[in-house]
Amino acid sequence: MPLQQYLQINGQRLNQRLQELARFGQAADGGVSRLAFSPADAQGRHQVQQWMQQAGLETRLDPAGNLIGRLPGQLSGPALATGSHLDTVPGGGKFDGVLGVLAGIEVASTLRDSALVLTHPYEVIVFTDEEDTMIGSRAMAGTAPLDAAAYRRKDGSPIDDCVNQVGGCWSQLALARRSREQICAFVELHVEQGGVLETAARQIGVVQGVVGMQRYQITITGRPNHAGTTPMDLRQDALVAAAQVVLAVNRLATCPPGQRVATVGALQVWPNAANIVPGRVQASLDVRDLDQGVIDHLVQSLSLEIAAIAEATHTSIDIVPQLQVAPSPAADHIQKIIARASADLGLSIMAMPSRAGHDALEMGRFTDMGMIFVPSQGGVSHSEVEYTPPEACTQGANVLLETLLQLDRYYSLEQMRQP
Amino acid sequence: MPLQQYLQINGQRLNQRLQELARFGQAADGGVSRLAFSPADAQGRHQVQQWMQQAGLETRLDPAGNLIGRLPGQLSGPALATGSHLDTVPGGGKFDGVLGVLAGIEVASTLRDSALVLTHPYEVIVFTDEEDTMIGSRAMAGTAPLDAAAYRRKDGSPIDDCVNQVGGCWSQLALARRSREQICAFVELHVEQGGVLETAARQIGVVQGVVGMQRYQITITGRPNHAGTTPMDLRQDALVAAAQVVLAVNRLATCPPGQRVATVGALQVWPNAANIVPGRVQASLDVRDLDQGVIDHLVQSLSLEIAAIAEATHTSIDIVPQLQVAPSPAADHIQKIIARASADLGLSIMAMPSRAGHDALEMGRFTDMGMIFVPSQGGVSHSEVEYTPPEACTQGANVLLETLLQLDRYYSLEQMRQP
Repeated sequence: MPLQQYLQINGQRLNQRLQELARFGQAADGGVSRLAFSPADAQGRHQVQQWMQQAGLETRLDPAGNLIGRLPGQLSGPALATGSHLDTVPGGGKFDGVLGVLAGIEVASTLRDSALVLTHPYEVIVFTDEEDTMIGSRAMAGTAPLDAAAYRRKDGSPIDDCVNQVGGCWSQLALARRSREQICAFVELHVEQGGVLETAARQIGVVQGVVGMQRYQITITGRPNHAGTTPMDLRQDALVAAAQVVLAVNRLATCPPGQRVATVGALQVWPNAANIVPGRVQASLDVRDLDQGVIDHLVQSLSLEIAAIAEATHTSIDIVPQLQVAPSPAADHIQKIIARASADLGLSIMAMPSRAGHDALEMGRFTDMGMIFVPSQGGVSHSEVEYTPPEACTQGANVLLETLLQLDRYYSLEQMRQP
Repeated sequence: MPLQQYLQINGQRLNQRLQELARFGQAADGGVSRLAFSPADAQGRHQVQQWMQQAGLETRLDPAGNLIGRLPGQLSGPALATGSHLDTVPGGGKFDGVLGVLAGIEVASTLRDSALVLTHPYEVIVFTDEEDTMIGSRAMAGTAPLDAAAYRRKDGSPIDDCVNQVGGCWSQLALARRSREQICAFVELHVEQGGVLETAARQIGVVQGVVGMQRYQITITGRPNHAGTTPMDLRQDALVAAAQVVLAVNRLATCPPGQRVATVGALQVWPNAANIVPGRVQASLDVRDLDQGVIDHLVQSLSLEIAAIAEATHTSIDIVPQLQVAPSPAADHIQKIIARASADLGLSIMAMPSRAGHDALEMGRFTDMGMIFVPSQGGVSHSEVEYTPPEACTQGANVLLETLLQLDRYYSLEQMRQP
C-alpha cells in the first residue's frame, strides 16, 4: 500500500515548535528547566494554549490545572484523548512530555485541514506537574489524595497554592475526575528515555504497559568497630552484608533474563570512616515490572536471601516498604492498533514495557490506555543532551494520528455491537 | 615459685589514679574528652607531672612537648623507657593511653619504695598528641616532618602553635630526636582496644609488633542512568561493581585465615538516588598486617580482581594509595621476656599483633620495642564504655615492672658481652 494514502501530520511545524517551546526555561547549556508551576511553565502553557486554539481545539482548565483542548465529534459520546506534559526536571531536555502534547495538536490540525470530523470527540491534555506529584493525571484518574498535606513537592511548595496559581481550583479537585464514559481511550506519544529502541534499531515502541514499582528501604545493623583492632572473624560488618544484598538484588533481576529491573540506587554507610568497620548501612531498593507477580516473586526471593545474609554476617537486616505503584497494562486492542498503524506507515516496531512513570499510567487506571515510544538517542533523558531526531518525532506523531483514526472506527463498531 | 618473691606495684593507687585522671575532660555520660592541647589535657599533664615527681622522677619537657620523667641508673648508659599518652579522642575512655603512663610511674614508685636502683636510667614518657598527629613519638623517632604545614590536625589548629602552647618549642623540634644510644629499649603497656584477649580468655597479650597499614582510595566510574528505563543488561552500575570489590576485599582478608585485616569503612555513592543507577562510587580500603609481604600480596591480588570486576561490570576502577605505614615489629627478646615475666606472675598469655597504631610503633623505628596488652571489656575502646577491670590493670603494671627488671639484667649482660 503506498504511504500517500495515509494522512500525514506537518512534521516541519511539529519540529519547529519543539524548538520554540524549549525557549521557555532554556539554560545556557541548551538544557531546559521548565519546572511545574514556574513562570517558564506558565509561559509554555500559554503558548501551547494558543497553538491549541489555532488548531481549532476549544481550551479549558480543569480544577487540577490540567489544560484541555477539545474538538467535538460527530457524536457526543466518550472522547478519544491524547496528551502528555510540558513541565521538565531541572536541567531537562526538549522532548520529554512536550512531544506528546505537540503531536496531539498536530493531529487536530491535520483533521481540520482534511475537513475530517471523528465520530468521537477528541481531547489533547496537558497534565499538571508530571515530573513531581503527577497531580494532573492522578486527579483525572481519581487517585489523587484530596488533602494537600499528603503531598511533598521536591521544592517544598504547598501543592494547593501551586495548583490554584496555574488556574486550577484545589477545593474542587474531586471534580477533575473523569470516567470511562467520558474518555473511552487515552494514547500517549512519548520519547523512550531508554536505549532499547536504539539498540534494537526499531522506529516505534509499542508499549505493553507502564511497569509497576515497589520501593523499599533496607537497613542493615552490624557493629561499628576499630578497623585495625577487630579481627575479621569477630566483625559484624554492615557493609559486607550490604554488598551481598546489592549483588543478590542484581542477580535476582538478571537471572533468568527478563524485562524486570531492580536497583539499589542509594546507599549510605555509618560512621563512614576508613578506620571503622561499618556499623550501619541504609539502602534503597526499587523493583519494576509489568507483572505484579514478577515483582512479588523477586521481593519474596530477596527476603529469603536477606535472612541468610543476616545470619551469615551476624547483622540484622530490615526491609520496609516505602512506595507501591501497581502496573498499568496497555489495552490489547490499542497495542494491536498501534502495531498495525506502524506497519501501515512502513515503520519497524518493538513491543516493550514503559519502565518510567507517565501520565498514561494513571489514565490506564480508569480507561483503555496505550503508549507509543520513539527512540531517545543514546538512551539519554532528563538531560540537556536528550535528543530524538526530527524524522522520529514526525513518525511518532503520524503513528499517533493513524492510531486515533483506527480507534475512532474501533469504538464506533464496538458501540454499535453493544445492546 | 611463690608470687610474693616478685615485686608488686601498688594496684590500689594505680586504679584510684586512673579514676582521678578521668576527671580532667570528663563528660556527663562518663566518657572523657581530653583532646591533645586542650585545657583538660594541660590539667591532666600537670597532675601526672606531680605524680612523677612524687615517685622520684625528674621531669622535663622536650621540644615536641613530650613530658619525660627520669630516674638515674647505676650507670649513665642508655635508658630503659616506658610510657604512653594522656590525650583522648572526643568521647573516649579512661584507660586508653593513661594506663601505660600511670603504670610507668608505679614502677618508679615501687623501685624507690624497695630502695632498688636499676643499672640503666629509667624514663616514663607522656607522648604528645597520640590520637591525632603522633607528633610526640614521631619527633622522638625522627620521623616527624619539621615543616608545620605538613600536618593537618583534625580540628584545623596549627601544630606549631599547639606544641609551643604546651611548653614545647617547634623551632627546636629536631632536638627531640632520641637514639638507640640514649634509649636501649621501650616497652609500652596499653589496653588491647579489641576483643581478642577477652574472647580467648587470656590475661596478657604479648605484642608481636604494631601492624603496618596501607590505605587506598578506590573510585569506580560507571554510568548514571534511569533505574526504571535502563534494562539490566545495558547498565554500568558502579555500586554493583563496588559490592564485588567489598566482597573481594573481605574474602582476601579472610581466606585463608590469618592475622591480616582489610576493611572498606567508607563508601559514597553518586548521585545516590533511589531511582538512578549509581554512576560513581568512592570507597576507602585499609589493610593491616605485621608482615609487609602479606599486605603487598593482598593488594596485588585485589588489583587483579579489580581488573576483572571492572571488565565484567563495564565500569572503570582506580585504586590510589593514600597512606603507607610500615609494620614495626617488637624485638624478639622483649617478647620472650614479657612472656616469661607473665608466666612468672602466673598470668596466661597470648601472642598477638597490635592492629592499632601506638607511640611504640614510632619508638620501634630506632630502638628495641615491646608492648604489653591487657583485655578491653567487650573489645570496646574510644568510647565512654571502654573498661578494663582493676585487677587486669594491676596485672599489666606488674608485668611491665617485671619485664623492665629482667630487661635491666638483659642489657647489662649484653653490654658486658660487647667488646
